[in-house]
Amino acid sequence: MSTAAPHTAGSRALEHPAREEIRLEAVLHALSDPMRLAVVREIAASRAAELSCSQIDLPVTKSTSTHHFRVLRESGVIEQVYRGTAKMNGLRRADLDALFPGLLDTVLDAAARQVQRLGG
Amino acid sequence: MSTAAPHTAGSRALEHPAREEIRLEAVLHALSDPMRLAVVREIAASRAAELSCSQIDLPVTKSTSTHHFRVLRESGVIEQVYRGTAKMNGLRRADLDALFPGLLDTVLDAAARQVQRLGG
Repeated sequence: MSTAAPHTAGSRALEHPAREEIRLEAVLHALSDPMRLAVVREIAASRAAELSCSQIDLPVTKSTSTHHFRVLRESGVIEQVYRGTAKMNGLRRADLDALFPGLLDTVLDAAARQVQRLGG
Repeated sequence: MSTAAPHTAGSRALEHPAREEIRLEAVLHALSDPMRLAVVREIAASRAAELSCSQIDLPVTKSTSTHHFRVLRESGVIEQVYRGTAKMNGLRRADLDALFPGLLDTVLDAAARQVQRLGG
């Protein structure tokens, strides 16, 4: 990190790829896992721009959950920021739409159709 | 396979998921690899509906190439059929478009944009 952020638990910054570093293959890989796809759907469906990790309850261990959020962040799909003690997660919609027009919405629509088709 | 195909080298049938067995996560995973994405782009860009494996020249070993084609087939992205001694590969566009409208074209467009952007 080039910015000097105070290294306290409440405000440490997490590494994210810049828009131009985001790769289609990494985005598709991030979205190819059922848990990660569920996370993205939940953030997209929320009225809030961001959800905390604890608001997105995954049926997996804490370390597995942390892994999934990290893959989403490192691929450029989500942005994670600490707000106080909460780690908040938001979609990088502007970046994704600029690089890959329609991709995020098409995948979200496909996921919704599949849930409807398979009933779960 | 429920159909009794003759088990000769020239006409043996390969296993494919039925349309209703195709899963979004598996399709995204299949498309998340640079080599496999290149294969899909090449078939999509071809004037022929099918290309043989030897027409799609990947800079990898034969066994790695076979692996990539198998992942594409088992996820439901491509259909592979033997015609004589050639294994022919075609996109399952009708199945993908029916299940996930716009997904294949959006990914192909995103891949083309990325190649243009990164010059590769």
